[in-house]
Amino acid sequence: MGKKGKSGISPTRADNYAEWYQQVVRAADMAENSAVRGCMVIKPWGYAIWEHMQRILDGMFKATGHKNAYFPLFIPKSFLEKEAAHVEGFAKECAVVTHHRLVEGPEGGLIVDPKAKLEEPLIVRPTSETIIGASFASWVNSYRDLPLLINQWANVVRWELRTRLFLRTTEFLWQEGHTAHATEAEALEETRRMLDVYADFVENHMAIPVVKGRKTESERFPGALDTFCIEAMMQDRKALQAGTSHFLGQNFARASGIKFQDKDEVEQLAWTTSWGVSTRLIGALVMTHADDDGMVVPPRIAPAHVAILPIFRDDDSKVAVMAHVEQLASRLREQRFGDRQLEVEVDTRDLRGGEKNWSWIKRGVPIRIEVGPRDVEAGGAMLVRRDQGIRDKKSVTVDELVATVPTVLGEIQTALFERARANRAEHTREIDDWDEFVDYFTPKNKKQPEVHGGFAMAHWCGEAEVEEKIKEMKVTIRSIPLEGDETPGRCIVTGKPSPRRVLFAKAY
Amino acid sequence: MGKKGKSGISPTRADNYAEWYQQVVRAADMAENSAVRGCMVIKPWGYAIWEHMQRILDGMFKATGHKNAYFPLFIPKSFLEKEAAHVEGFAKECAVVTHHRLVEGPEGGLIVDPKAKLEEPLIVRPTSETIIGASFASWVNSYRDLPLLINQWANVVRWELRTRLFLRTTEFLWQEGHTAHATEAEALEETRRMLDVYADFVENHMAIPVVKGRKTESERFPGALDTFCIEAMMQDRKALQAGTSHFLGQNFARASGIKFQDKDEVEQLAWTTSWGVSTRLIGALVMTHADDDGMVVPPRIAPAHVAILPIFRDDDSKVAVMAHVEQLASRLREQRFGDRQLEVEVDTRDLRGGEKNWSWIKRGVPIRIEVGPRDVEAGGAMLVRRDQGIRDKKSVTVDELVATVPTVLGEIQTALFERARANRAEHTREIDDWDEFVDYFTPKNKKQPEVHGGFAMAHWCGEAEVEEKIKEMKVTIRSIPLEGDETPGRCIVTGKPSPRRVLFAKAY
Repeated sequence: MGKKGKSGISPTRADNYAEWYQQVVRAADMAENSAVRGCMVIKPWGYAIWEHMQRILDGMFKATGHKNAYFPLFIPKSFLEKEAAHVEGFAKECAVVTHHRLVEGPEGGLIVDPKAKLEEPLIVRPTSETIIGASFASWVNSYRDLPLLINQWANVVRWELRTRLFLRTTEFLWQEGHTAHATEAEALEETRRMLDVYADFVENHMAIPVVKGRKTESERFPGALDTFCIEAMMQDRKALQAGTSHFLGQNFARASGIKFQDKDEVEQLAWTTSWGVSTRLIGALVMTHADDDGMVVPPRIAPAHVAILPIFRDDDSKVAVMAHVEQLASRLREQRFGDRQLEVEVDTRDLRGGEKNWSWIKRGVPIRIEVGPRDVEAGGAMLVRRDQGIRDKKSVTVDELVATVPTVLGEIQTALFERARANRAEHTREIDDWDEFVDYFTPKNKKQPEVHGGFAMAHWCGEAEVEEKIKEMKVTIRSIPLEGDETPGRCIVTGKPSPRRVLFAKAY
Repeated sequence: MGKKGKSGISPTRADNYAEWYQQVVRAADMAENSAVRGCMVIKPWGYAIWEHMQRILDGMFKATGHKNAYFPLFIPKSFLEKEAAHVEGFAKECAVVTHHRLVEGPEGGLIVDPKAKLEEPLIVRPTSETIIGASFASWVNSYRDLPLLINQWANVVRWELRTRLFLRTTEFLWQEGHTAHATEAEALEETRRMLDVYADFVENHMAIPVVKGRKTESERFPGALDTFCIEAMMQDRKALQAGTSHFLGQNFARASGIKFQDKDEVEQLAWTTSWGVSTRLIGALVMTHADDDGMVVPPRIAPAHVAILPIFRDDDSKVAVMAHVEQLASRLREQRFGDRQLEVEVDTRDLRGGEKNWSWIKRGVPIRIEVGPRDVEAGGAMLVRRDQGIRDKKSVTVDELVATVPTVLGEIQTALFERARANRAEHTREIDDWDEFVDYFTPKNKKQPEVHGGFAMAHWCGEAEVEEKIKEMKVTIRSIPLEGDETPGRCIVTGKPSPRRVLFAKAY
């Protein structure tokens, strides 16, 4: 909260959640809409968060034996036609390249050159299963070539009608893992391993608690035999799918011809998997941690751990304050948190103190340190944690500060995770009664028609018709959880036997 | 050289340089052509080289105050029309997105949906000056917002008719720096600073000696007032432009409307720069260091510093050898070279020893270590350097090995640079006579019509007509060097005064 109870972001979450989200992203200087429909510009603060996510995930991929490679941006139309379910899922709304030249038009300016039409249209990749499949088919000949464990960091394009920064954009950045194995068991193991990697990363680095689960048949990736996912609860109680890992069986191997000679020299089809997370995760980060004053970034992925704000009134005090600040900054930069040295920003911009302070609150830097002339005299500084009240300043000596900042960062990381977990617990309910279920998902607040109960753990008999019926309320089965209560029961709709409760929610 | 003088790569450089290049890239498992015309697949070994290049360059960019951001893949046609010279240079041969949907065709399969035609065609970025300019225009308002120092790592597309792996591909990966400044002097300083960063990186990490220089007017980036470049000599004596840094004056600021209020509240146009290097540099790496046995990777950017090849005949010897090898590998991994821990590959593939050995020679790993049963008994191993003869094995104890590998890597790094510098010196000549100049660039070898003298340092009066005349021989002025001999003289063509010698060469 700012002056006189005014918040840093307007509207607040309670007033208009959807608009609050957009304002947080903009006020934090993370991203903005571009002149190109549905495509965003990721600004330095937002991109630096993505870089830290990439660095950590990439290390986890490499530690589990994967290597990066890069495949073409364009996919021939014929490739997309190879796998029937894939066509349904991806080939329809996409960017189609039809020509390779512009020429000067009769009225000046440029026009598409009708003489430069491509023989076969190219699709800007919505995902790379088919083009990577073609490479795998030529790389894999013998069981000795397996497993083949490849990851790609890339941009992809899906033509979206309604877009929202990070959450749903026509172009987005992601990683897509693609692996081929000699046996079904190994491919299944890989699928689950990468789900665990995602859960570990999202919980321990992004401080977002997730439910690991298996998708129902109707929610699977087009062409997959099994899709696993991690689901997170946002502050408006909706679910967001934060990562998926697919067991593709032999479907894509068959479509692409990924075959190998086994040890007995018998030709076999390979078993493949794919798995991915995207810049959409940054949307989940905002909706999990940000508050009415702006963004809050967990220290492990923060572009800067600490912002130091020097305060001075004239040139004399400036010299003294800046000397103190530079010394403090360099001592802090020698400290470590997690897997890196502390990153410290000293804000020397020619702006008023309040404006500077608010810019760092809105960006969500974990720790702000204010240093004014009086702090210099006392050999100290004022420390403010972003996860606490913005006026909750603590006066500390420089030695204390240098010694405790890594610990405080650890406390912030934990506090953010615990706060998100408490929010999820508060809005998760076991429901066994249909009327209660309907009531739970019915918005009560006219001002905020989206606000509803949250996650419901309820029994389901496994029938697709039940899913369809519940979808009318915009509620879907997010997953059949892999952990938690496994007691059987009766389906909330049909009363038929259910092996265990599943996770129902409205979703992004 | 392999058995009986047979080389690892066929043909050799002397037999067919262009084909040798393609074979080296393929044999090293660095890249291959894809099913999409002109687009390559970058395989793990090649991509890992790019990752190390990225990591080091990115650190240098950040150390000089730049931040990364990401801008849209697509550029509206109208943006490209804004800057006249830019249209000429880039807008013509490009991938044009005209539709956003495929539908099922009357005969099955997919066709482009005529109802989904875009109102304005989108161009897949050939470079991002115009789209980044639009963002800069909204980000820059006051002198306080300057300098704005942004870099982007991205894929770009230029529709090329004749493509060659890494050297010229329709899609390639690169970084493009874009900066805006309050004054001309600052923008010029930035342009030169980034040229120095590139020269430092290419010489000290890629071990490729370069000439820093300024392009002549006819060779400038479309829309630039001044283009600086680094030029390297390949083993066929042709030049390859390894990086460029452009001073754009106020041209792009004017086209995009990048304006700011100065300290006196007067509106001013900003001064901008742009600079980039691409995966083309990997082509330069191959053509500088590879030999007739395959790739040679400088240790500082090598995906692995050391490959250990265990040799055994039966399961008993396997147990002993593998125990020895694993211990050696883990001790080596604790050592450092340059800015990272040693990366060590233990090749346990189920392949014959010779095949394994050759696969690492062809990939160009700096050091190979062979460990067989006799080495285990002696507590040692055989060390082979890639920059020396492939039979030049040295028997060493494990302790020696662990202690000296970082030193040997440093020696290899230096040796590769010195070898390349010697090659350049051997094929660079000061020429003052026109007949000699013509003879120098005239191929003598019928088998290899491309082989000619190399670099010529000659005087030029500054007239574009002279450049045109010399271009008939496929020779261009690569740059007006920034260093070296600055003695004036007489133009080799017109006899008019010349302020200093310039660099003439045939080029990629």
